[in-house]
Amino acid sequence: MLKMELRHLALLTDFGERDYFVASVKAVALAINPYLNIIDITHNVPSFNFEAAGFILTACYRLFPAGTIFLAIVDPGVGSERKIIMVLTEKYYFLGPDNGILWPALQTQRVLDIREIKTKKYFLTPGRTTFEGRDRLAPAAAFLSLGLEPSEFGPSLTKIKSIPLAHPVIKKNLISGSVIYVDKFGNLITNIPKEIVADLIRNGKKFIIIIKDRVIKKFAKRYVDSVSGQPFGLINSLGFLEIALNMGSAAEELGAGPGTPVNVSII
Amino acid sequence: MLKMELRHLALLTDFGERDYFVASVKAVALAINPYLNIIDITHNVPSFNFEAAGFILTACYRLFPAGTIFLAIVDPGVGSERKIIMVLTEKYYFLGPDNGILWPALQTQRVLDIREIKTKKYFLTPGRTTFEGRDRLAPAAAFLSLGLEPSEFGPSLTKIKSIPLAHPVIKKNLISGSVIYVDKFGNLITNIPKEIVADLIRNGKKFIIIIKDRVIKKFAKRYVDSVSGQPFGLINSLGFLEIALNMGSAAEELGAGPGTPVNVSII
Amino acid sequence: MLKMELRHLALLTDFGERDYFVASVKAVALAINPYLNIIDITHNVPSFNFEAAGFILTACYRLFPAGTIFLAIVDPGVGSERKIIMVLTEKYYFLGPDNGILWPALQTQRVLDIREIKTKKYFLTPGRTTFEGRDRLAPAAAFLSLGLEPSEFGPSLTKIKSIPLAHPVIKKNLISGSVIYVDKFGNLITNIPKEIVADLIRNGKKFIIIIKDRVIKKFAKRYVDSVSGQPFGLINSLGFLEIALNMGSAAEELGAGPGTPVNVSII
Repeated sequence: MLKMELRHLALLTDFGERDYFVASVKAVALAINPYLNIIDITHNVPSFNFEAAGFILTACYRLFPAGTIFLAIVDPGVGSERKIIMVLTEKYYFLGPDNGILWPALQTQRVLDIREIKTKKYFLTPGRTTFEGRDRLAPAAAFLSLGLEPSEFGPSLTKIKSIPLAHPVIKKNLISGSVIYVDKFGNLITNIPKEIVADLIRNGKKFIIIIKDRVIKKFAKRYVDSVSGQPFGLINSLGFLEIALNMGSAAEELGAGPGTPVNVSII
Repeated sequence: MLKMELRHLALLTDFGERDYFVASVKAVALAINPYLNIIDITHNVPSFNFEAAGFILTACYRLFPAGTIFLAIVDPGVGSERKIIMVLTEKYYFLGPDNGILWPALQTQRVLDIREIKTKKYFLTPGRTTFEGRDRLAPAAAFLSLGLEPSEFGPSLTKIKSIPLAHPVIKKNLISGSVIYVDKFGNLITNIPKEIVADLIRNGKKFIIIIKDRVIKKFAKRYVDSVSGQPFGLINSLGFLEIALNMGSAAEELGAGPGTPVNVSII
Repeated sequence: MLKMELRHLALLTDFGERDYFVASVKAVALAINPYLNIIDITHNVPSFNFEAAGFILTACYRLFPAGTIFLAIVDPGVGSERKIIMVLTEKYYFLGPDNGILWPALQTQRVLDIREIKTKKYFLTPGRTTFEGRDRLAPAAAFLSLGLEPSEFGPSLTKIKSIPLAHPVIKKNLISGSVIYVDKFGNLITNIPKEIVADLIRNGKKFIIIIKDRVIKKFAKRYVDSVSGQPFGLINSLGFLEIALNMGSAAEELGAGPGTPVNVSII
C-alpha cells in the first residue's frame, strides 16, 4: 500500500485539449502515484513556442504550494540530442526538455540541484520514443512525487540551456522595451517593470507611451478607470507595464503582438 | 498539520484556458488548502459576459455535493467600487464580484448570510490589485474551505446586485419568450419553462413555435425523434423549451441567439 | 461516513468546454462519491463523432491505473432505443452508449462482463431524459466506484454494437491503408502498424509512401530527423505509421484527413 503522499503536479504543454496526449501523460503519472493531484496550467501554448511557455510558468509558479512538481513540455526537439532535465529549487521541482523552457522561471529562484533524466528503469519503456512527455518525463515526475531523490534520475548538470530574455533599455528620457506576451483579453504585457514606472510617478515625471506610432497619454490604476475605446497603460498583476483597452483588445486595436517595441518617453 | 478536509471548489470564469489566470487562482487556493478538490465548471464564458456565467451556474450548481464552494469570476468592473461578496445558502457557498453574476442561482435557494469580503488579512496582498480573483477571492474561498465562518471575511450585507431576468409573457393564446442561451451544439435554450408546455399538451392544445419568421410545428420528446434538417421544439434537460436541430446547429440554421424572441402560439 | 475509496473516473465526451454539460456530469458523480478523482481525457471530440472518440480512448486507456472507470459519451442517439452499457474487463470499467464508441478499446482486452444499465434506483431521476450522461451514466459510474457489482446495474448482455475498423490490405508489394486520425499538430495517423514497416526495414526492403498523389521517400525515426517543409513517414508513439511535417501540419500540406488512402509501395 502506497503511503498517502499528497503532492501537486502542475502541467504546462502545447498538446492542446482535443487528443490523447494530455490524458496519456496524466495516466502514466497516476499509474505510478494514484494520489497525485494534477493541475493543468495550460495545454494551449502555441505549438512549439517554448518562450511563451516559459513566460506563463514564470507568471504563476511562485503561487503554488511548496513541493509542487512542475512538468513543462513544449518540445520541438523531442527525441533529439537535447537533454531532458529535473531542477530542484528551494521550494519546487521543475521537469522538462532542456531547451530554455525552464530558464525564465529559474532566474528568480535559488537552484539547488540539476539532473539529466537518464535512468532507464524509471522510463515507461527503455527504448527510443517520439513521446518523451509520456514515456520519460511523466514517470520521472511521478516517481519523484513518491519521494525518490533527484540524484536517482541521472547525473548532475552544472548548467542548462538559456534563452535570451528581452530587457528594456533605459536612456536618459526614454525607456525602450517590447511586448513579451498577449493574453486572451488582448492585453499587451511588456517587459518594463513596475519599479521604473513607479519611479517616474514618484518623481513627478510626466510620460507618454509610444507603440506602433500611437501615442498613449492615459495611465490608469484600474481597467475601469480608462476611457472606453482608448488604449491606456497600467501596471498589471504580474508587475509589468501593460497596454490595455477596457472591454476590448489592445492587441487588435494596435496591431501589436510579442516583439512589438514599446517606448516610454518622459516629456 | 492540516486536518484533512475534503472540500469541493467549483470555478467559473471568463479567463480562457491559454494564459496563467486559471492556474494562478488554483495555485493560491491550493497553497492555503492543499486538500481542495477543484472542479472547472468552465473558463470559456464569453469575455465580460456575467449574464451567461449566471445562466451556466444556475444550470448546474444544484447537482454538486452539499458544501461545495462556488467561485464565479466574470468581472468587467474589477478594481472598481463594486464589492466582492460571499453568500451562504442552505447547501452551498458562492463567491464572486457583486455584479449580478450570482443573482440567478440565488433565486432558487434560501440565502442565510451575505458578506462583503473585506478582511485584509485573508488577502494575498493587502494593497490595490487588478486581479482580485487571484488576490482576494481565491484566498477567501480557500480559507472558507478550512472552516472559517463567513462572518470572518467582512460585514453583513442585506442585498446584492440583481440583474433583470427575462421572463416569458403569457397572453391568452400566445406565450412570448426569448432565447437566453445557446450551447455548443447550437441548441437555442429559451426562458419558457416546461410547465407551460406540459399544460398545453395535457389540455390537448395544439401549438406552433415562431422564431425569426419561421414556424416550427414539430415538437419532439428526444433529439432523435426529429426530422433531419428541420428545427423542432423539445423540453431540454434543464426544464426549458429548446429549439434544436438534430445533428446540426439550430442557432446557425435560424440565425438566432441570446435575445431572439420566441413565441409559442396556440392554434 | 463514506469509506475513503480512491478511484479514478476518466471522462471522454463531445460536450465541449464552454457550457454546463461537463460540470453537470462531474457534479452528479461527486455528489455520490466525493472522493472520486476525475480526469478529463478530452471534451473536444468533434460533435457526434463516436469513431474519433473510440480512437482516442484506445490510444490512452491502457496507461491508466488498474480499476479506472472510463465514461465515454458521444451519443447522437441519446434517448433512443440504443442501450447504455457497462463493460468490465480484466483491468478496467467502461461505460457509455452502445453505439460502438467502446468497441475499438475492447478489441485489445479480455471482456469479463457486459451489462445494460437499467436499474432505475441508480438514476438521477427515474423518468425520460435528454441528458443520459448526467442522469444515468454519471450516477452509474459513481455508484460503481463505491463498490457495487456490475450485476446491480442491469441484465447481462452477450454482445455490443461494433463499428467497422479500417484494416490495411497487404498485397505483394503494396500495403494499402488509410488515415484514421489527425492530431492537433496536423500529424496524419494511419492504420498501418509498426510491425509491417519494421518487417520491411529488417528485410532490407526499400519503400515509398504515396498519399494524395505525393510520393514520400523520407522515413525518419524522430520528428527532428526530417527535412524542413518535407512530409515524411515515422512510427509514432501509438505504434502506427504516421505522416508528419516537422514544425508544420502534414494534414494541411497534403490536404489529407481521416479516410485519405495511404499506400506503402515496396520499390
